[in-house]
This record gives sequence, C-alpha cells and structure tokens, in this order.
Amino acid sequence: MNLLIKEVRHNPLLWLLVFVPIVFVAHKLKPEAHTLLFAFSVLGIVPLATLLSHATESVAAKTGDTVGGLLNATLGNLTELVIALAALRAGQYTLVKASIAGAIVTNTLFMLGASFLLGGLKHHTQEFNRVSARLQAGLLFLATVALLIPSAISQADPSPAPVFLQQLSVGLSALLIAAYCLGLFFSLKTHRELFASAEHGHDDEEEPWPLAVALATLAGVTVLVALVSEVFVESVQGAAMDLGMTPAFVGFIVVALVGGAAEMASAFSGARKNRLDLSVGIALGSAAQIALFVAPVLVLLSYVIGPAPMSLQFWPGAVIMIFIATMTASMVTNTGRSSWFVGALVLMVYLIFAMTLYLLPPRGQ
Amino acid sequence: MNLLIKEVRHNPLLWLLVFVPIVFVAHKLKPEAHTLLFAFSVLGIVPLATLLSHATESVAAKTGDTVGGLLNATLGNLTELVIALAALRAGQYTLVKASIAGAIVTNTLFMLGASFLLGGLKHHTQEFNRVSARLQAGLLFLATVALLIPSAISQADPSPAPVFLQQLSVGLSALLIAAYCLGLFFSLKTHRELFASAEHGHDDEEEPWPLAVALATLAGVTVLVALVSEVFVESVQGAAMDLGMTPAFVGFIVVALVGGAAEMASAFSGARKNRLDLSVGIALGSAAQIALFVAPVLVLLSYVIGPAPMSLQFWPGAVIMIFIATMTASMVTNTGRSSWFVGALVLMVYLIFAMTLYLLPPRGQ
Amino acid sequence: MNLLIKEVRHNPLLWLLVFVPIVFVAHKLKPEAHTLLFAFSVLGIVPLATLLSHATESVAAKTGDTVGGLLNATLGNLTELVIALAALRAGQYTLVKASIAGAIVTNTLFMLGASFLLGGLKHHTQEFNRVSARLQAGLLFLATVALLIPSAISQADPSPAPVFLQQLSVGLSALLIAAYCLGLFFSLKTHRELFASAEHGHDDEEEPWPLAVALATLAGVTVLVALVSEVFVESVQGAAMDLGMTPAFVGFIVVALVGGAAEMASAFSGARKNRLDLSVGIALGSAAQIALFVAPVLVLLSYVIGPAPMSLQFWPGAVIMIFIATMTASMVTNTGRSSWFVGALVLMVYLIFAMTLYLLPPRGQ
Repeated sequence: MNLLIKEVRHNPLLWLLVFVPIVFVAHKLKPEAHTLLFAFSVLGIVPLATLLSHATESVAAKTGDTVGGLLNATLGNLTELVIALAALRAGQYTLVKASIAGAIVTNTLFMLGASFLLGGLKHHTQEFNRVSARLQAGLLFLATVALLIPSAISQADPSPAPVFLQQLSVGLSALLIAAYCLGLFFSLKTHRELFASAEHGHDDEEEPWPLAVALATLAGVTVLVALVSEVFVESVQGAAMDLGMTPAFVGFIVVALVGGAAEMASAFSGARKNRLDLSVGIALGSAAQIALFVAPVLVLLSYVIGPAPMSLQFWPGAVIMIFIATMTASMVTNTGRSSWFVGALVLMVYLIFAMTLYLLPPRGQ
Repeated sequence: MNLLIKEVRHNPLLWLLVFVPIVFVAHKLKPEAHTLLFAFSVLGIVPLATLLSHATESVAAKTGDTVGGLLNATLGNLTELVIALAALRAGQYTLVKASIAGAIVTNTLFMLGASFLLGGLKHHTQEFNRVSARLQAGLLFLATVALLIPSAISQADPSPAPVFLQQLSVGLSALLIAAYCLGLFFSLKTHRELFASAEHGHDDEEEPWPLAVALATLAGVTVLVALVSEVFVESVQGAAMDLGMTPAFVGFIVVALVGGAAEMASAFSGARKNRLDLSVGIALGSAAQIALFVAPVLVLLSYVIGPAPMSLQFWPGAVIMIFIATMTASMVTNTGRSSWFVGALVLMVYLIFAMTLYLLPPRGQ
Repeated sequence: MNLLIKEVRHNPLLWLLVFVPIVFVAHKLKPEAHTLLFAFSVLGIVPLATLLSHATESVAAKTGDTVGGLLNATLGNLTELVIALAALRAGQYTLVKASIAGAIVTNTLFMLGASFLLGGLKHHTQEFNRVSARLQAGLLFLATVALLIPSAISQADPSPAPVFLQQLSVGLSALLIAAYCLGLFFSLKTHRELFASAEHGHDDEEEPWPLAVALATLAGVTVLVALVSEVFVESVQGAAMDLGMTPAFVGFIVVALVGGAAEMASAFSGARKNRLDLSVGIALGSAAQIALFVAPVLVLLSYVIGPAPMSLQFWPGAVIMIFIATMTASMVTNTGRSSWFVGALVLMVYLIFAMTLYLLPPRGQ
C-alpha cells in the first residue's frame, strides 16, 4: 500500500485510479448513461494500463533477460488484449477488428510520429539503432501481407465460401504466431548482440517492484481492467452516437489511444531524453505484437469463448491503412536518423486517417 | 524591349512567342478549328512558360533567400496553375484532375528519368544529395496517401455521400497545404544547412533581370498565359478527337509536357552539366508543389470560382499511377547515385502509363 | 555416354532420368491415369531440367563472356519456357499465366528465402553485392507495373474492350523485352565492372562439357522436355482434382517448384558455401528473366502458335502476389546483409501465398 502511494506521487496519472470505483458505481446506478460510462471507463483504464505496464516490467526485470523478454513480449499489450477479449465475448467482432487495426496504425504512426516530433523539437537531429526497427518493420510487413491476402482474394472473388475464410484465418494465425516466436528467438537468443542497446535502455527507466508485489498487481489489475473493459465495450457504441463520432472513429482512434496511453508516456519521455532507440522499439514492437500475437490469439480464442469463429478478414479500408502505416514506418526508420519534420510527416499520415474515419458516414464501416 | 530581344537571342525557344498573337487572331477568325487552335496554343504556352519561370527566378534572386525560396515555391508552377484555373472556370473538372495527376506523374517519371538518362549518357555514374530528394519524396508520399484514401474508401463503400467527399476534400486540402508550409519551414529555416548545395546551384544559372522588369513580366505574362490557356482548354477535347487521342492521354501526357516544358529544359541542362542535385530538385520539387499546393488550392478555389465544388477524389487509375510514380522516385533516389540505366528504367515506367492511356477507350477515363 | 554416366555419379538427381521413358510408356498404356502420369512427368522433368541447365552453362562458358551471358540470359529458363509453350499450344491460358506468376513468386520468395535461411543456419551473418540485386529488383518492379496496369485499368473500368487489352499486351510485351535487353547491355557491356564478382562465381561451379556435347544435349534434352511437358500439361488438371489440390495451387506452386528444381539446387549450394552473390543472382535473375523475357515472348508467340491471342492481364490475386514478392525482394536485398531470420521471414510470405492458394475454392481461380 505504501508502494502504491509512492507510485501515485511519482506518476500523477495514477490519480485517475479514483475513476475505477466510480465506473462500477455509475454502472450500477445509471446503466443507460452511455456517454458518462464511456468517459469514466476511459479515465479508469488509463491508470490501470500504467500499473499493468509497470508490473509487467518489474516481473521481467526480476526474472532475467530471456524470461523477462518473453514476458514483455507476451504481456506488453495486456490492456489491449483484455479490452478486445471483452468485445469478443460480447460478439462485437467489428469493434474487435477496428481496435486491432487501430492499435497497429496508432502505434506505428501516432506513437512513432509524436516521438520523432517531440524528440526533434528538443534535439536538432537524432539517431537510433536501425536493426531493431528493421526487425519490427519486417514482422509488421509479414502481418500486413497476412491481413491483405484474405481481403484481396475475397475482392477478386466476390463471395468466397465462409469455410475458406475460416480455414485460412486459422492457418494464417498459426503462421503469424510462429513468425512472432521466431522473431523472439532471433532477438533474444541467436542474434541478441545486435539488439543490445535497445534492450538495455529499458531497465533503468523506473525502479522495479519486488516480485511478489509485481505479481499480485499483475493479477489484480488484470481483473480490474477486464471489469472496466466490459463497461467500456457496452457503452462505447452508444457514446459514439451521442458524441456524433462514427463507430469506425471510436474503434480505430479512441480505443487505440486509450489502450496505448501507458506505452505512449514511456515512448515520448524516451524521445525527449534523446533515447529514440527506446521510443522506436516501444512503438514498432507494440504494433508488431498486436499484429502477430494479439490478433491471431483472438482469432483462435474466438473458437473457444466467442459466439462464432472470427476471421482475419478486415474491412478493405483498414487493410489499406495498415499497409500504408507499415510502408511509412519502414521508410522513415530506414536511415536511422530523424528530425522534427519526419515526425510531423508521420503524424500527418495519421491525421489523414483520423479525419477520414471521423467524417465517414456510419454505414461505411 | 532591348532585354526581351537579348533574351530571345539567348534562348531560341522564345521565337515561339510569335504564336501568342497568332492564337488570338486564329481564335477570332476560326473558332471551330480545334486542332489548329490546340497546336497554336501549345506553341504559344511553351515560350510564355519559359519567360514566367525566368521572371519568377529573377524576383526570387533579388528578394533574398527566404522570400525568394517562398516565391519559387508558390509561383514555380504558375503555368500549370493558370491552365488548371482556366479549366476549373470552364467546369472541366475531369481535365483539371487529369492535368494535376499528369503533371505529378510526368515530373516524377519523365523529367527525373530523362535527366538520369541524359546525364548518364555523358557521365559514367553520377551522385546527388539525397536529403532534398528524400524530403520531396516524403511530401509526395503524403500527398499520395491523401489522394488514395478518398478513392479507396469510396471503392470499399460503393456510394459515399457526396457531402462526405466534399468535407474530406476540404480537410485534406488544408492538411496538404499545411504540410507543404512545414516542409518549406524545415528546408528554408530550421534545417537549411542540409539543403545548401541544391539551393546554391540554382542562382548562377542565368543572369537575373532587374526587379521592375521581372515584376512587370510576371504580371503581363501571367495574363497572356491565362488568355492562351482559355483557347487551349476550349480546343483540347475537340483536337483530341480529331487527332485520335483519348482525352485521358491529352490530359495526362500532352498538357503535362506543355506545362512543364520550361522546367524540363533547366532539369536536362543541369543533368548534362553533372549537377544532378539541380535536376532532381526541380523534378521532385515541382511534383511535390503540384500535389501539395496547386491541387489543394484548386479544390479550395473551386468553391469561389467554379460552377460546383471540386473533390480530391481521382479516377482510381490515376491514383495507382501516382502511387507507382512516388514509389519509383523514392526507390531510385534512395542510393544517391545514378547511371543511364536507372533513367531508362524510370522512363519505361512512364512509357507504360503513356501507352496505356493512349490505347484506353475514351469512356474509360 | 561416358560423360553422362560420370554426370549421373556426380549428381544423384540424374537417377530420375529413368522416369523419362517410363512417362512415355505409361502414357501409351494408361492415358487416363492422370495422377500417375502427373507424378511420373514431374519426376522426369526434374533431371532433364538439371541437364538443360548444365548444358546451357557449358555452352556459355565456351563462348566467352558476352555471348555466354546472352545465352544464359535467354536459355536459363528454357524448362519453364518449354512447359509454358506446351500449355500455350493446348490453349490452357490459365495454366500458362498461373505458371508464369508462380515462377516469378517462387523464385523471388522461395528460392531467395530458402537460400538466406540455409546460408544463415551455417553462417552467423552473410553479405552480398547489392548492385546486381538492385538491377534485378528494378527490372522486376518494371514488370510488376506492366502486369498491374492492365488489371488495374480493367478493374476501374468494368469491361474494357478486348481489342484494347490485346493491343496493350503486345505493346507492354515489346517494352518489357526492350527493357530486358537494355538491362543485359548495362550489365554485360557498359557497367560490367559493377557486376564482376557475381558473374565470376558462376564459372568454376561445375566443369563445363565440350561444346559439341553441350550443344547436342541442349537440342536433345529440349525435345525430351517438350514431350514430357505435353504429358504433364495434359494430366495436371486431372491430377489436381484427384489429389484435392486446387488448380491455382498446382499452377502456382507445383509447376514452379518442378520447373525451377535445377536452379534451386545451385542457389542453395551457393548459399551454404557463403557465396550469396550467386544465390541472389540466380533467384532474382531467374524471376526477372521470366517476367521480362519468357512472359512477353509467350504473349507474342500466342499469335503464332496459340488458338487465340493471350493477353498480359492476370488474375488480380496473382498481380498482388507478384507485387508483394517484388516489394519483399527489394526490402530484404536493400542492406546487402542477411541472417537466418530474414530467410525465415521471406519463406513465411511464400507460405501465406501457398496456404491461400491451397485452400482457395476451385472457382476462385
């Protein structure tokens, strides 16, 4: 408890924890107040995500490099996973897919672009290790191909048998998870020396918690995130309507920004401290993790907990956005240097997407 | 007047100025002779564009680096802008869009490719400053995304509300102009040292005119271009039919080559003199200017002077060509080296487009 | 004959030659046993392709660098050409196109990826000359654009006049062959010094045959391949049905792997010997040759020997796969370095394609 108070002092975001009980009370009292519940649950998820992220890193720091790397790699996007699971259980597959695509695009463009911009406003030019960026961009490219193919085929061939799409989705999911594991094996085991600098920076950021505290926090906070997420998923569509936002905009932009708030804080602070390795690693690593681990796991889990199997076929507009985001990321990380304008350019691409989704008439989703 | 005669001696292209009065006389006498008027107006625009380009550079040279850079950046494609304005006022939006797309593709592929080829035939291998090429390619990429999104969304969603397309087009136009301004701020102000060599080369090319002469020429010639452009726009479709060319071919290829004649002369002469920085700067800079400044300005002006608002939604074939042209430009400028074969390859891509547009049945536009 | 026996000892693959007479006998006795004939003809083509490849290289080695380079460049994919000619004569244009697209994709992804993987399992990191890879990737990009445009235009414009597609296909074919010749002129003549290392490695691989033997083998084996190919083409669709494989999978994957078996053996052995220049050159060179020489020649020959003209318009799914394969190749050869993971990533992209084609319902082709 002392530790929690110390944390709250250290990180003002944690004051928002007060919204966690408020969400539950409000949900009991006014289950129809969509917009209010939406706002409260957003405000509640942000500090929980911060705690979750710190707990995962603490466990990782205590368990050594390889196990720690694995933990970070699997639990690093636990918030996004839990939110998506809540939507999956509710059968809201459009929301699940929009939030997956949105998280990939937001991490690749917004988190990366804002890091470059914030870093570049302080430092004239910045350099970063390209090896890690290239690995993540390669994995993202593979995932993009995997998402592109079912959509491309089903456009070429107007009505593919649903059974084809299901088999293909399961196969592609297995393949993406395998690729993700190979990437971990490559970066944590056979060629770890290439990634040394990026890994190192992560540790001395914040002081890790004792293992018992970290594990307890991990378990307890995950349950809390799950509970708040349920309110969030229930209220999000109604709130979107009330606020005049399209469901596509909410799924892509709002959910992604909420789910990624904690990582963004780390990425931006790294960029200001001229440690762009860290920022690029968090942004692209997180996008790759969602594309190659969270999304396939959700497809496979939909057979167990969903009302029906979920496919990997995305709305063509989402596939194009992911494709462009991946191209942008590999173009701008190609040189290993950046300045504020590169960040501005990447953010502009994100703004184009956000603007389109904001204006898109609802049925277009 | 003495100066004009000196210029005409120096630059044989200016003999074509004789066609300017011929156009007006012919238009009065034979308003139905489309092909003749088309030919005369093409022959008249080329020398006017050369004068306009020289006048802009003279004003720029006299007003110092920053103001000069701004002038070059806004008036550098004045010919294209005036032609497009004539078509806009006539409500010929298909021609406006074809000429925008054509100018982007022609500058990116034909001007760049022919510069590489002509330079490479004289010099075994050539090197150029990549920083400027990368900035322009980045801006072009952003513009491509902005053009791609409305088309992609409206393909995914068969009949988007026209109001959606209009709002989106205005938003995207504002964003592109903002990006263009940020790019100028970056290259003329915060990071100008990176672009030094490319800027420098431009000045000592031709002797600048006195400021008064330059400003008078700028004003007078702009009016002449506007008048000739009106005849051109009026006659172009009829001439295309007479000559057996598709409207798409005329809009994309013929108009773009006519409008860019003056810049091409500078770019090619730079390449022969082994100053590829100059050629690459003119080719990609001009393409970026059309995509991020001329096109959005036309969209916004369509609300003021056009019969109806013009959107940024292009024919999907045009979007694909712009996308491929941008990819080609960033691939071939990536290494900062070139030889004749690179130029040949880029020209071949242009030839594929020209051939397709030439053969395309009319209704396909 | 002695030489043949020596060869057979040296290369165990040649034991499969025994299947060549078996194919003919089986075809006489059981013309309806599709699956059996398919298997026998596959087993027969592999050793013939190996002989053909060695004969071509022997002639090339005896006739000096330029003529030799030309020979390798035109006859290097003789097996694929002969198989495609058999399918062309039979009017099976879908199979012809699938095998062209499949050969491009298989060489670019499978041959390149497996070379990187096999090389990387033995050597920690490997380096290779980027110049040659960049030339081939550039040519492949041009071919991709040429294949993309007819499909893109005909998607944008629902029913293009067939005469448009035919004229365009002939024009594009001429252009691709011209580009291929320019590429040869560049790499064998004007800038040969840049390609020196890659060329050199090829010679001392195996001992060349005497010229007379090589020429006789070339002629005789070509005839045999043609005869076996006819059985192959006749039986492939029936066999696909019996084996539960889609025609798309057979055309793309099986035919491509069979036709390229000989080159794959060379490419993989080069990679194990840490001579990646050789492997990359074979993989991308072979893909470029099929795209810029074999495919256009088949289009032009369809006017002479086919039942009707064949166009360059491919199934959109095939165009997307070729596009992605070209992008992948230029991304991974960009740095001139590789390790096992790069190979694994490239193979995964190939696996995604193979899996999709395997699961694709038949009518989707």
